[in-house]
Amino acid sequence: MSTDLQNRRIRLASRPHGEPVPSDFLHDTAPVPSPGPGEALLRTLHISLDPYVRGRMNDAKSYAAPMEVGDVIVGGTVSEVVESADESLAPGDVVLGYGGWQEYSVEEVAGLHRLDPAAAPVTTALGVLGMPGFTAYAGLTAIGKVQPGETLAVAAAAGPVGSAVAQIARLRGARTIAIAGGERKVALLEELGVDAALDHRAPDLPGRLAAAAPDGIDVYFENVGGAVWDAVLPLLNEFARVPVCGLAANYNATSLPDGPDRSGALMGQVLAKSLTLRGFIQREFAPTMFEDFQREMGAWVASGEVRYHEDVTIGLDRAPEAFVGMLKGRNLGKALITLD
Amino acid sequence: MSTDLQNRRIRLASRPHGEPVPSDFLHDTAPVPSPGPGEALLRTLHISLDPYVRGRMNDAKSYAAPMEVGDVIVGGTVSEVVESADESLAPGDVVLGYGGWQEYSVEEVAGLHRLDPAAAPVTTALGVLGMPGFTAYAGLTAIGKVQPGETLAVAAAAGPVGSAVAQIARLRGARTIAIAGGERKVALLEELGVDAALDHRAPDLPGRLAAAAPDGIDVYFENVGGAVWDAVLPLLNEFARVPVCGLAANYNATSLPDGPDRSGALMGQVLAKSLTLRGFIQREFAPTMFEDFQREMGAWVASGEVRYHEDVTIGLDRAPEAFVGMLKGRNLGKALITLD
Repeated sequence: MSTDLQNRRIRLASRPHGEPVPSDFLHDTAPVPSPGPGEALLRTLHISLDPYVRGRMNDAKSYAAPMEVGDVIVGGTVSEVVESADESLAPGDVVLGYGGWQEYSVEEVAGLHRLDPAAAPVTTALGVLGMPGFTAYAGLTAIGKVQPGETLAVAAAAGPVGSAVAQIARLRGARTIAIAGGERKVALLEELGVDAALDHRAPDLPGRLAAAAPDGIDVYFENVGGAVWDAVLPLLNEFARVPVCGLAANYNATSLPDGPDRSGALMGQVLAKSLTLRGFIQREFAPTMFEDFQREMGAWVASGEVRYHEDVTIGLDRAPEAFVGMLKGRNLGKALITLD
Repeated sequence: MSTDLQNRRIRLASRPHGEPVPSDFLHDTAPVPSPGPGEALLRTLHISLDPYVRGRMNDAKSYAAPMEVGDVIVGGTVSEVVESADESLAPGDVVLGYGGWQEYSVEEVAGLHRLDPAAAPVTTALGVLGMPGFTAYAGLTAIGKVQPGETLAVAAAAGPVGSAVAQIARLRGARTIAIAGGERKVALLEELGVDAALDHRAPDLPGRLAAAAPDGIDVYFENVGGAVWDAVLPLLNEFARVPVCGLAANYNATSLPDGPDRSGALMGQVLAKSLTLRGFIQREFAPTMFEDFQREMGAWVASGEVRYHEDVTIGLDRAPEAFVGMLKGRNLGKALITLD
């Protein structure tokens, strides 16, 4: 059974080798199916672009199952209900779902969350009040355990996770060092009131980071990997905590970098400084912390104590280029596609 | 002020480059100083040989300050009180101290622990009931958090830390895989009743380890690094914990190994499997856990539920060769020097 609607969508045409290219994406149109029992037909308003989706394009085991070639590209969405087979949702309701890169989706009502457009702009459900904001909150609270007077560093700090990390750490009384690429992002970070905003593209990041962290670094929120991590590691204090939530610098890598092999030396630092490295995905903490997050972060956003930025691209067809740009760090704030 | 006694001692003649050689050690004799207020003069009975001492011979910042060239080589000791300026200790008492590689030491009474030779052989204070045993207990309890039904792997399992790890894990209901080098050690581990005892020198450790861990590995107690870690990493389950207490395979390394650089791939595994890597030194946990350890481990040793082995070398002068042999894994059980 299908409706009379036609669904424009973007599917995975081939697994990218390194950086995704246009031919990895297939744009097509298909009839929109009718919702079955317990399902709703949704029209997509906004699509979230997130780095983890690059990992799901690979045929490699990670924390999420890979997409199959031919699948609609996955992603969180804010949508309007067109038709619902479940009485808990009515046409016109706005919901948070996981519709991916398409104009329409049919989703199970049980997996949708109705949003209140009067409480906060609905796009915040994809950013500061959604998965990225909760990633920051949970990683800092459960793993980083940042304390007043400690020093925290975070990279990709102009992005939705990093920006929330920096602001939550500052609200919890930590000295906060925010690292991002380019003058425009550094200006944004200075506006947020961090203690130091560093451009990782300018010369001598290790020297500038050491100067910004005279007492060393107690918490490093790992979003990026690569050269920033290399600069942070020697500055970590004894008992420092490293929540590892992303390694964006590596996502397009196709082979291991040249030697020497520093993996043993990394373990040596873990031992010598009693470091904690802890990978995590926010969903691990959702059952125990999501309510606290909604209450606390909702109040901070409402009061303006936590601010957020969005980087909106208009039009479904531009999702691939916006996605690749985000992987390169071209976005300023949360990367979104708003459908036209 | 000095006594009439002459003190034979072994000092650091030069910082070793790689494996220590005889010329790195200076054997000499000096007058024994008299104890001052709050001090005691001790005659060394047994000296503990431990891998961490190799790290302290380097001029590199680690969890302990390096020794200086000319210092007596450090080490835990069991000694007899010769003379005490503090009434809490009497001549003839046997104490646990930190006298190092010498026949006599003068130590602060506040840092000494009187031992009860009737309760357990006094050498156990350097092994299963001392620092190595507590390292095993604290790392497993506070970081490994091993649960009944989980799978634990430990390397250097014929050594004093690894052997205690394997036996405590088994007592806590975990499937226990013990790894050591050579048939003699494997035979000892089989005698201890582990679920699998593997020789890391035999061919195809990765394949044999995978066969021994059909449900993956939940806790890996890291004592060694190197090829064993390489075999363990792919088998770690989601949320696996890795207490990092030693990296014996690297202690004599003088440069980084050839590439490719796998440090980023290691971080990728931390992320993909939500791993916890946590370096530690037992003293971090002594204030909160040492009493529990003494009670629980003391009972297990007394009942025979935990067994231990000692590898005793007679004579102070043989300490350097026994130390180098221990770094190469030639000891079977706790490496000790007993003075003649």
